[in-house]
Amino acid sequence: MSVQRNYEREFVRTFFTSPTAIKEGDDSAKMLRRAAGLRGMQAPDVWIPDNEDATAPNMRAEGAQNIIEVVGEHGADFPGEIHPRIEWHRDRPTTRLNGFEYMREIADPENGAVEHIDGFVIPEVGDIDDWKKADEAFQLVEAEHGLEEGSLSMSVIVESGEAEIALNRIRDEMGKPSNTLERMFMLVDGEVDYTKDMRGMTPTGELPEWPELRHNTSRGASAAGLVAVDGPYDNIRDVDGYKQRMEDNRAKGMTGIWSLTPGQVEVANTAPLPPVTGSWLLDVDGEEVELTADGDTQVYDGDDLSLEETGDGYVLRVGGDEHELSADELREELLDMTSYVPSMDDIVDSMEEFEAAKESGMGAIAMTQAATLVIDGVEVSLEKDRMWDEATYQAAQTPITLFQDVYEHRPDQHEELEELYGADVVARATEVGN
Amino acid sequence: MSVQRNYEREFVRTFFTSPTAIKEGDDSAKMLRRAAGLRGMQAPDVWIPDNEDATAPNMRAEGAQNIIEVVGEHGADFPGEIHPRIEWHRDRPTTRLNGFEYMREIADPENGAVEHIDGFVIPEVGDIDDWKKADEAFQLVEAEHGLEEGSLSMSVIVESGEAEIALNRIRDEMGKPSNTLERMFMLVDGEVDYTKDMRGMTPTGELPEWPELRHNTSRGASAAGLVAVDGPYDNIRDVDGYKQRMEDNRAKGMTGIWSLTPGQVEVANTAPLPPVTGSWLLDVDGEEVELTADGDTQVYDGDDLSLEETGDGYVLRVGGDEHELSADELREELLDMTSYVPSMDDIVDSMEEFEAAKESGMGAIAMTQAATLVIDGVEVSLEKDRMWDEATYQAAQTPITLFQDVYEHRPDQHEELEELYGADVVARATEVGN
Amino acid sequence: MSVQRNYEREFVRTFFTSPTAIKEGDDSAKMLRRAAGLRGMQAPDVWIPDNEDATAPNMRAEGAQNIIEVVGEHGADFPGEIHPRIEWHRDRPTTRLNGFEYMREIADPENGAVEHIDGFVIPEVGDIDDWKKADEAFQLVEAEHGLEEGSLSMSVIVESGEAEIALNRIRDEMGKPSNTLERMFMLVDGEVDYTKDMRGMTPTGELPEWPELRHNTSRGASAAGLVAVDGPYDNIRDVDGYKQRMEDNRAKGMTGIWSLTPGQVEVANTAPLPPVTGSWLLDVDGEEVELTADGDTQVYDGDDLSLEETGDGYVLRVGGDEHELSADELREELLDMTSYVPSMDDIVDSMEEFEAAKESGMGAIAMTQAATLVIDGVEVSLEKDRMWDEATYQAAQTPITLFQDVYEHRPDQHEELEELYGADVVARATEVGN
Repeated sequence: MSVQRNYEREFVRTFFTSPTAIKEGDDSAKMLRRAAGLRGMQAPDVWIPDNEDATAPNMRAEGAQNIIEVVGEHGADFPGEIHPRIEWHRDRPTTRLNGFEYMREIADPENGAVEHIDGFVIPEVGDIDDWKKADEAFQLVEAEHGLEEGSLSMSVIVESGEAEIALNRIRDEMGKPSNTLERMFMLVDGEVDYTKDMRGMTPTGELPEWPELRHNTSRGASAAGLVAVDGPYDNIRDVDGYKQRMEDNRAKGMTGIWSLTPGQVEVANTAPLPPVTGSWLLDVDGEEVELTADGDTQVYDGDDLSLEETGDGYVLRVGGDEHELSADELREELLDMTSYVPSMDDIVDSMEEFEAAKESGMGAIAMTQAATLVIDGVEVSLEKDRMWDEATYQAAQTPITLFQDVYEHRPDQHEELEELYGADVVARATEVGN
Repeated sequence: MSVQRNYEREFVRTFFTSPTAIKEGDDSAKMLRRAAGLRGMQAPDVWIPDNEDATAPNMRAEGAQNIIEVVGEHGADFPGEIHPRIEWHRDRPTTRLNGFEYMREIADPENGAVEHIDGFVIPEVGDIDDWKKADEAFQLVEAEHGLEEGSLSMSVIVESGEAEIALNRIRDEMGKPSNTLERMFMLVDGEVDYTKDMRGMTPTGELPEWPELRHNTSRGASAAGLVAVDGPYDNIRDVDGYKQRMEDNRAKGMTGIWSLTPGQVEVANTAPLPPVTGSWLLDVDGEEVELTADGDTQVYDGDDLSLEETGDGYVLRVGGDEHELSADELREELLDMTSYVPSMDDIVDSMEEFEAAKESGMGAIAMTQAATLVIDGVEVSLEKDRMWDEATYQAAQTPITLFQDVYEHRPDQHEELEELYGADVVARATEVGN
Repeated sequence: MSVQRNYEREFVRTFFTSPTAIKEGDDSAKMLRRAAGLRGMQAPDVWIPDNEDATAPNMRAEGAQNIIEVVGEHGADFPGEIHPRIEWHRDRPTTRLNGFEYMREIADPENGAVEHIDGFVIPEVGDIDDWKKADEAFQLVEAEHGLEEGSLSMSVIVESGEAEIALNRIRDEMGKPSNTLERMFMLVDGEVDYTKDMRGMTPTGELPEWPELRHNTSRGASAAGLVAVDGPYDNIRDVDGYKQRMEDNRAKGMTGIWSLTPGQVEVANTAPLPPVTGSWLLDVDGEEVELTADGDTQVYDGDDLSLEETGDGYVLRVGGDEHELSADELREELLDMTSYVPSMDDIVDSMEEFEAAKESGMGAIAMTQAATLVIDGVEVSLEKDRMWDEATYQAAQTPITLFQDVYEHRPDQHEELEELYGADVVARATEVGN
C-alpha cells in the first residue's frame, strides 16, 4: 500500500461493541467484563466499549467509570485494539461537551486505563469542520494529560449525508497546520442513523443497501490510508446473509464489519480469509451454483442443466435452450460457464510460482486449474488457464496481506489458524510476497 | 431532522408541471387554469407553471403573462405551493437574461401574482458558480420589487454532470456573505437532459436508471436541508413502473417525484404514505411474493414452492431443492423467508408501544407480528419478533413525519385521508411522536 | 455539446495498447510495427504505444526509442490518434522522473516523431495536485522543445481512490493561471490497479464491477468536456461479455473502452454504432428476449411464455401465471412487454421526420413502430407509439453525433461503414441534424 497509514493494523476485520453499563443484575459492567475476556477467533480486531447508543443516556457516567475499571484491569491482556465510543453530535453542542468530558476522564493517566486504549470512536459526525472539532477535543485531552500528540487515534461513524461528503475531503485536510487529523484510523458506516438522516424508507422497514455510501467510505479510506468498516447487521440469526454482506463489501474494498455478538465476531474474523479448500462454481442461467467435490470430480446435482451423450457428441440443455455440441465445443461451453474459487493453498502456490517465474525473467505465466465435471453422470475434463502478470499478482496479494496482518497482530489466533489451514500452509502464507 | 430547513414543507411528494401557453384553442392559458383548479389527492404539493421546456419558445412571453393572470386569480385558493419554472442555461447568457426578465415580470407586485408564488425553479444549472448567478437574479428581483430577501425560494433541475458535482458543495456555499443560497428549496433530477449531457445511450432509447445521480441528489438534499425530487416518468400508462420507481427512490431517501398528469399526481401523493392494511411477503428463490390474505390466514398460491405434511414432519420444496423438516425447523425456515409490510395502523401502534415502554424506563422492546401461512393447504403459524430501540423508532418515524407534514399543509386532503385510513388512525397518526 | 472540448475527437471508441519493446525475436519493436499497420475497423481511434505496464521495466529505454522510430516512420499514415503511455506514479518520484525523461525524449522534434503524436497518457495519477505535477512535465517539455503550449494532450488512468476523487475537481482546476490542464483529453479507468489500491477482493479473483467508479469517470468527463474510457476486458475469448460491458458503459455515458487485440478493437469500434437492422425485445419475467424476425413477423420461440386462442379470447401464460384476455387486453399486455431497438435507418428516419415536423411548427409528434408478433403460432399485430419532442430528439442524437464524429475523422472506415449500412443510410446519417 502506497498511502501512509498512521496506525498499526492495516486491516480491521471486526468492530465489536459492548454496552458500558447496564441496569440488570448487580454488576453494571458485566458486558464489558465478558467482552474483555474474549480470545482467539471470538475476540475482535477492535473492541468498542460503547458509551453511546448501546448504553442508556443516564448510565453513561457510570459507563465511563466502568471503562476505566475494566480496561485498566484487563486491557493489557486483551488481544485486539481498544477504542471506546463516546457521545458526539454534529448538531448538539451539549452532546459534544459531554463526549469531550468523558474522553478527558477516560484518558486521564491517573485512572490507569489510557495506556491500553488505542483511540476513541466519534459517532454522528457532520461535515469536515465538525471532524476538526472532534480532533480539537483530542488535542486538548492529549495536551492536558501530557500524552503524545496523535497517540490517541480517531475513528468516526459516518451516519449523515454531510459526513459522507466529508469522506472526499479527509486527504486534503489531513496535515494542515491547525489540525492533527493524521490521527484518523477507521471510517465506519452507521446505516441505521444514516437511513434516518437521509429519510430513507422501505416497505418492511428493513435498511436500504446504500451501495454508494459503502463505495464512498471505502474510497475515502483508500485515498487517506484509513480502514473502512461496515455497520451492524441486525439479523443475528441470519449467518448466510451476514456472509453475503461481507462478500459484497469486500468487492467494494471494505474489509471490516461491525459485530454485535461473539458469534458474529467469529464469522467476521474468518470470512475475509481465503477458504481452506478451493471450489468450482457453475454459472447456470445467471446463477452461480457451487459444485460438490466427490473424490477427483466436481458434481452438479441441480435440475436447471442437463447433459446427455449422443452417438456423435453431446446435448446440453440450459433452461429452455438445447445445444448440440462436439466434445471440444462442450468443453469450451463449460469453460465459459465455470469459475474457480482458490483456496489459501492455491493462492500461495500461484504467488510462489509467479515469484519464481519473475526471478527467471518471465513477466507473465499461465496458471492452470484442472477439474473433472460430472453432469447427469457424464464426465468432462477441463483445464482453466489464467494469465498472471505483475498486476494480477499484486491484486491476488490482498487476501494474503490481510492474513499476514492478522498473523502478526493476533498471536491469540495462531492456534486456530493452524488447525484450520495446517501449519505448513500458514508458514508459507506468512512468508510469501515478503 | 437536525439540519435547518428554510421553508415550510419538509417533504414534497409531487412536482406537477403545466405548459404556460399553448396554441390549440382560444385560451392559451387553458392548461394553467385546469391545473389551478386541482384539489385533494389530485393536487400536487408543488405546482410548476412551466415556462421552459413544456412551453414552445415563441409562446413564453405570453406564458409569463398567463402565469401572472392565472396565479393572480386562483393562487390564493390553490392548496399546494406554486413555483414557476423559467428559462435558464449554464452555457447560454441570452437564455439566462430571458429567464431573469421573465422572473422580474412575474414577481412584480404590481402584477398581483407574487404574493401567491413561493419560489422559482431554475433548469439547466451548471457548476456552483452558475447557481450563484441564479441566486443573484433572485437578489436583484427581490431588491427591485421591495420583496424580503430570501422570500422567493430557489429550486434547481440537476441535468448536467457539473450540477451533479455541485450537489456536494451546496452546504459549504450556503451562508457565505455574498450569496443568499439559503433560499434553496428543491433539488430536482432531470434525467432526459442529463442523459443527453452525459451522452448516455441505451439500445431502445429508454433512459438509463442513473442510480448514482439519484443517490447524490438525495445526499445533497440531506446535507443541506433540502428536498430531493426525481424527474419525469414518461410512460404514463405504466402505473406499476411508476410505483416501483418511487419505491426505489424512497430507499434512496428521495421522497418526491415529477408528475405529468393529475393521475400521476394522485398516485404519487399516495405512494409514500404507509398502506392501509399490512401484508406478508414470502421470498421465493430471491423473488418477493405478496401473500393473499384470506380471513386470518395468508395464502401462497404460486407454483415455485410446495409444502407437504408427512407422517413425522414436512417436506418443503423450493425451486429444485427439497427439504425434510420438523415442525420447528419449518417454522424457522419460513420465518427466514417471510417479511411483513406494516400498515399505517401498525406503525402508529408500534410507536405508541415503544413510547410507553420508554416512559417506563425500557430502552428496547420486542414487537411481535403473528400470522398463519397457508401453503398447499398446509397451515403454519408464525410469530415474527423485531427489536425496537430508539434508533428503530426514529427510522420508523420517517413515514409518520411525512404524513404529519402532509396533514398540516394539505387540509384539502383531510377528507380523502380519513376515508382511506379511518378517522381514528388519522387522529392517532397526527399525534404520535410529538 | 455545450462544454468546450479542447481536442478534435468528441468520441473515442477504442483505446488500443501495444508493448513498446519485447524480448522475443530479433525485432523488439515488432508489436509496435504491427499495430502501426492497422487500418479500417481494426484500427483504433486512439493508439497507445505502452511504455508502462505492457513493457518490462528494463525494456523501456529501448521502448522509447522504438516509439520514436516506428511513429516517426508510420505515424503520418496511421488513421487514429497516437498517445504513448509513459511511466508515472503518485507515490514514487523516481518513476515520475523517468516518465518525464521519456516524454522529453519522445517529444524532441529532432527525433522526428512528435509531429505525429497527439498527446501522452499518464498512469497511476493521484490527487489533483499530482495531476498538476504531470501537467508541469508537459509544460517543461513543450517549452524546451519550442512546441506550442497545450499542443500535447494529457490523458490519465484513474486507478486509485484519490484519482477518483480528483474527477470532481478537474473542471474547477482547468484554466487556473498556473496550470495548463486545458490539455486534458481522456479519463481512462484502470480497474486492475484500482482494485489493488482499493483492496477489493472477490472469491474467484475476478475484478469487481466498480459501477460507481465508472459513473464518476463519465461524470467527470461530462463536466470538464473530456472523453471517458473504460479499462481492459481481460477475457479476450468472451466477446458477448465484452459487448455487454460496453452496453452497460454506454448507459453510463462512457463510450470508449480499452482494447487488447485488433479483434477487440473491431468489436469495440462497431458496438456503439446503431445496429443495421432493428429488432424487437420481449420482457419475459424480467428477462429481455430478442425475437426472431421471420418475414414480416417477429417470432418468440422460448418456453417461458405461452399463448393460446380460445373461443372468445386468449390465454397467456407467463411463468406460473395464467391470464385470460380479450384481443384488446392481449395487445395492451404485449405492448407493455415489448420494446424496439431501432436501427441506424430508423433513427435517421425519426430525426428527419421530427425535423420536418418542427419546421412546420409542431413541437411533438408520435413515431409509430408496427410489428406482428408470433407466439405459439398465434399472430398478434401491435403498434407502438413514442412521443418525440425536442428533448427526445436531442437524446436520440447521441449515437448519430458519434457516427458523424467517426465518419469525419476515420476516412479509412468509410468503405466498411458503407458495406455495413449501405451508402444511402450512411449519406443521410452524415447529414441529419446539421
